[in-house]
Amino acid sequence: IPEVELGEDEVGVATGLAWTPVGGDVLFIEAIVTKGSGRLILTGRLGDVMKESAQAALGFIKANADKYGIKKDFSKIDIHVHVPAGAIPKDGPSAGITIATAMLSALTERKVRKEVAMTGEITLGGKVLPVGGLKEKILAALRYGAKTVILPEKNKQEVMEELPEEAKKKIKLVFVNRVEPVFELALYPEEKKGRTKRKKSS
Amino acid sequence: IPEVELGEDEVGVATGLAWTPVGGDVLFIEAIVTKGSGRLILTGRLGDVMKESAQAALGFIKANADKYGIKKDFSKIDIHVHVPAGAIPKDGPSAGITIATAMLSALTERKVRKEVAMTGEITLGGKVLPVGGLKEKILAALRYGAKTVILPEKNKQEVMEELPEEAKKKIKLVFVNRVEPVFELALYPEEKKGRTKRKKSS
Amino acid sequence: IPEVELGEDEVGVATGLAWTPVGGDVLFIEAIVTKGSGRLILTGRLGDVMKESAQAALGFIKANADKYGIKKDFSKIDIHVHVPAGAIPKDGPSAGITIATAMLSALTERKVRKEVAMTGEITLGGKVLPVGGLKEKILAALRYGAKTVILPEKNKQEVMEELPEEAKKKIKLVFVNRVEPVFELALYPEEKKGRTKRKKSS
Amino acid sequence: IPEVELGEDEVGVATGLAWTPVGGDVLFIEAIVTKGSGRLILTGRLGDVMKESAQAALGFIKANADKYGIKKDFSKIDIHVHVPAGAIPKDGPSAGITIATAMLSALTERKVRKEVAMTGEITLGGKVLPVGGLKEKILAALRYGAKTVILPEKNKQEVMEELPEEAKKKIKLVFVNRVEPVFELALYPEEKKGRTKRKKSS
Amino acid sequence: IPEVELGEDEVGVATGLAWTPVGGDVLFIEAIVTKGSGRLILTGRLGDVMKESAQAALGFIKANADKYGIKKDFSKIDIHVHVPAGAIPKDGPSAGITIATAMLSALTERKVRKEVAMTGEITLGGKVLPVGGLKEKILAALRYGAKTVILPEKNKQEVMEELPEEAKKKIKLVFVNRVEPVFELALYPEEKKGRTKRKKSS
Amino acid sequence: IPEVELGEDEVGVATGLAWTPVGGDVLFIEAIVTKGSGRLILTGRLGDVMKESAQAALGFIKANADKYGIKKDFSKIDIHVHVPAGAIPKDGPSAGITIATAMLSALTERKVRKEVAMTGEITLGGKVLPVGGLKEKILAALRYGAKTVILPEKNKQEVMEELPEEAKKKIKLVFVNRVEPVFELALYPEEKKGRTKRKKSS
Ligand SMILES: [Ca+2]
Ligand SMILES: [Ca+2]
Ligand SMILES: [Ca+2]
Ligand SMILES: [Ca+2]
Ligand SMILES: [Ca+2]
Ligand SMILES: [Ca+2]
Ligand SMILES: [Ca+2]
Ligand SMILES: [Ca+2]
Ligand SMILES: [Ca+2]
Ligand SMILES: [Ca+2]
Ligand SMILES: [Ca+2]
Ligand SMILES: [Ca+2]
Repeated sequence: IPEVELGEDEVGVATGLAWTPVGGDVLFIEAIVTKGSGRLILTGRLGDVMKESAQAALGFIKANADKYGIKKDFSKIDIHVHVPAGAIPKDGPSAGITIATAMLSALTERKVRKEVAMTGEITLGGKVLPVGGLKEKILAALRYGAKTVILPEKNKQEVMEELPEEAKKKIKLVFVNRVEPVFELALYPEEKKGRTKRKKSS
Repeated sequence: IPEVELGEDEVGVATGLAWTPVGGDVLFIEAIVTKGSGRLILTGRLGDVMKESAQAALGFIKANADKYGIKKDFSKIDIHVHVPAGAIPKDGPSAGITIATAMLSALTERKVRKEVAMTGEITLGGKVLPVGGLKEKILAALRYGAKTVILPEKNKQEVMEELPEEAKKKIKLVFVNRVEPVFELALYPEEKKGRTKRKKSS
Repeated sequence: IPEVELGEDEVGVATGLAWTPVGGDVLFIEAIVTKGSGRLILTGRLGDVMKESAQAALGFIKANADKYGIKKDFSKIDIHVHVPAGAIPKDGPSAGITIATAMLSALTERKVRKEVAMTGEITLGGKVLPVGGLKEKILAALRYGAKTVILPEKNKQEVMEELPEEAKKKIKLVFVNRVEPVFELALYPEEKKGRTKRKKSS
Repeated sequence: IPEVELGEDEVGVATGLAWTPVGGDVLFIEAIVTKGSGRLILTGRLGDVMKESAQAALGFIKANADKYGIKKDFSKIDIHVHVPAGAIPKDGPSAGITIATAMLSALTERKVRKEVAMTGEITLGGKVLPVGGLKEKILAALRYGAKTVILPEKNKQEVMEELPEEAKKKIKLVFVNRVEPVFELALYPEEKKGRTKRKKSS
Repeated sequence: IPEVELGEDEVGVATGLAWTPVGGDVLFIEAIVTKGSGRLILTGRLGDVMKESAQAALGFIKANADKYGIKKDFSKIDIHVHVPAGAIPKDGPSAGITIATAMLSALTERKVRKEVAMTGEITLGGKVLPVGGLKEKILAALRYGAKTVILPEKNKQEVMEELPEEAKKKIKLVFVNRVEPVFELALYPEEKKGRTKRKKSS
Repeated sequence: IPEVELGEDEVGVATGLAWTPVGGDVLFIEAIVTKGSGRLILTGRLGDVMKESAQAALGFIKANADKYGIKKDFSKIDIHVHVPAGAIPKDGPSAGITIATAMLSALTERKVRKEVAMTGEITLGGKVLPVGGLKEKILAALRYGAKTVILPEKNKQEVMEELPEEAKKKIKLVFVNRVEPVFELALYPEEKKGRTKRKKSS
């Protein structure tokens, strides 16, 4: 019964995965939308690559705002992305799809399913590129009680070879080439927005 | 009779706790609100992590402005947070909930109870994360005459094991997972705003 | 049958070529246009020379906006150029014509032919200057299944001497002095915009 | 007859005290108010701590503008603080109350009494914190012919122990916990503004 | 028949001269004017001195806009100056008059005569100051087929002593104290603007 | 007959004096005023102290704009100060009064008398503070044919002791405590503005 840490599903908090020298870890990426002046605020000791990754995620969402029913005028809001813990430096592009998911959740007020963990670089056009540390990340997702892990299609072979059979049985692995199915899997459906009552995951 | 230093309850000054190489210390975090242009001004030799912590605290408050009855247009005010003494460098995320409390006090004009000391990292979504130096911080709160110390729930076990029994008897320890109860405990009630006459604590 | 990687023709993604210490590589340069305030956003760990190259490309396009039927007010849009992979540092001026092509595609919504790879520095006035690493870049284009490579006229002699005869037979080499023929070759014709149905190249 | 240097009382020039490796010195802090856009301009090779100190001083004044009869819209003025000599680096928080006094003088057009010298850190809320180098600073004030020195209450014991009895007889020492009495002592009364004719002090 | 490189006369491209450790070189300085917000954009790895030189050139032109029939509102345009090749660092003030010529050409749409090469520092008031590397620069102009070289009056003696007699016969040297005659010599006359048909120089 | 270098009197060019390791030198400080947005542009490799000195000079002029008949709205102009030669680094506060003179000339269109050389730090309130290198600076003024040198009153004793008697006979020395008499001596009278015809000094 590992479900200790993921907590209740919320708007604006997505479950990412990080590789660290002592193993994989779960990373909660927070996004909020406030009245503002078109700023993207990035906090949590994010390195330059991770900050650019957040810019790419936002670029994709802006360019596809109509498709996702976003009516907000981006020049009149600020989007703030924070990645606790605040004292731990973080970098790399692999949180791209998680940042995009947290942002889209905050913009549409659709909750994120916390038991859907994910890792993958996002491009400005919405492609999902391969990342590193897959085995450790998936094992961390398991420890936290995640039910599904979304991974880049280009990491599929590597994951299938390296991940212990036992782990493969315990968690659903979904491989993607683009970010749209990530949103499908991780976000609550649009029509249920605001009224959904899901079983709490913690 | 240790009540030497906390001073009278005020709007915009919250009692934080710091760890230093020579023991814990009390830190008064000041916040004011002036007419302005949406700026967050941070002074007192704050390091980058502490500045980001203040941004996260403000993000949480902006996103929950309605809930706390804040009617101000954030694009037309500046919020200035200062942490004396000005020559001493400070850093780390553990002042997060104290900064949030000082800000909310300044925005709502509800006084802060100085005898409620606190330490804990705040996330953008309002969660309270564990911090370090607990024993030293609580003893410092005692020395200054604090009556209550608010601490992260995740530090509970560590505090209960390490804190001398004598200290436990002299001060009320409150463990929290989120920031809302911090505001409940530390801020004067909203309805009494501007008319409250409390016994001075110094 | 090397056509593994180029993918379907899209708006805003042009096929560039890079030289690396371990051989040439294909680089997909992405551009999007969103509502904004006249900013040029550049991400993907681009070095200063590459960023200035993007500014020169944009300068040329702005100065020739009428000629290309661009009706957008540049002060009311942001142009974001991203070059995956986000963790790999990139620099140098040789992506100039590729950046210009991706930008013009995004601004006019004309798709880019992915099988047209290219390398060449662009000047503010639209001239194409010679670059390095030609042999390696052309071989990389071949590996990815490109049908055409656009190159600076001033590199012609060097390319003709160094490129293996076999490679010369497999790919069409086009040498240019200016950027206008690059757009002719790489972008779908204007009149077919939005309705074109081309055979997918992957 | 030491009154050589203080000069005539003026609007916008307050008498501060500095500690240097070769003894104390008098520091004239200048402030002017011009039409502008809400900027605080700080010149005179001020270090970061001293710049933040000026920000705190301005914050206090803004938050108490009504109390001091300031009718100016801070978003439409610039406040410029300069500390000659321009080539000498200066830092530390101890000029806080002097900067506040010069600013308030410039904003209200009340002259400053130059023979009132002062040293003390200011907090955003107007408290006065202890500083260093007291003995040297007071002796410098004496050399320049100051009649009064304002000092932090928390430095009282130290000053009383260290200052030579002879010096104590020649100058009036005023110890304060907050900045309001500093303004009372150093600024000409409000009602006499613009018409005051005082005996020149030089 | 050295006329290999100068190319056709254009609006916004002026022929400068650079000194390098391996001899003089010709430098084409490009300027364009686009709708904008009063920015001066400087690209081509320009050093700080060269950037300030461009600012001085622009200052002179702004202050003399009426004289040159410039009707554009500088707050509503951007001026972009680029100096290829983008990867080569450049610095020094000696391109001042060339930058001014390229800018004025772009602002007035008067073409520049490419066969008029030039070197000289410009001051904000339009004076032309001496520069270095004259002999090497003039020989480079000759190699590129320039017909005229404009030089600072204060370099006249040095040039007359050091330049080989043979070179003096092949090229016209014009020495100037101010920038106005530079514009006279290098720019097409105002009245012919847009209709001039000159023999191409390449 | 040393009058080789000063040149004709102009609006916006004042004659300063610099100390260098190889002796004193004359420095022409240029100022222009253009339509703009309230910016102070400083070029000529000026160090931080010299830049702050220019800010102090501008502050004084802004605060005394009425007195000098300046009707321009400072928020709608840019003031550009340039100190040739562009490649030579310059620093120190001693050009303060010269910068102020060049600025005031540009703002009022009153010409500056080039034969009036000057050196002295300016404070925000218009005081003139002592500077170094006096003897070398005065001898440089003599070499350039200056008729008058303005100096800080506080340097009077030092100058009188160190300057050779011969030099004292050849040039008029004026010692000042404030900047107003500098403007009196160096600027053409206001009423003659635009119509003055003076004997050229070169
Ligand atoms: Ca990761
Ligand atoms: Ca990564
Ligand atoms: Ca702390
Ligand atoms: Ca901490
Ligand atoms: Ca390349
Ligand atoms: Ca290159
Ligand atoms: Ca001091
Ligand atoms: Ca101090
Ligand atoms: Ca040069
Ligand atoms: Ca030069
Ligand atoms: Ca000087
Ligand atoms: Ca100096």
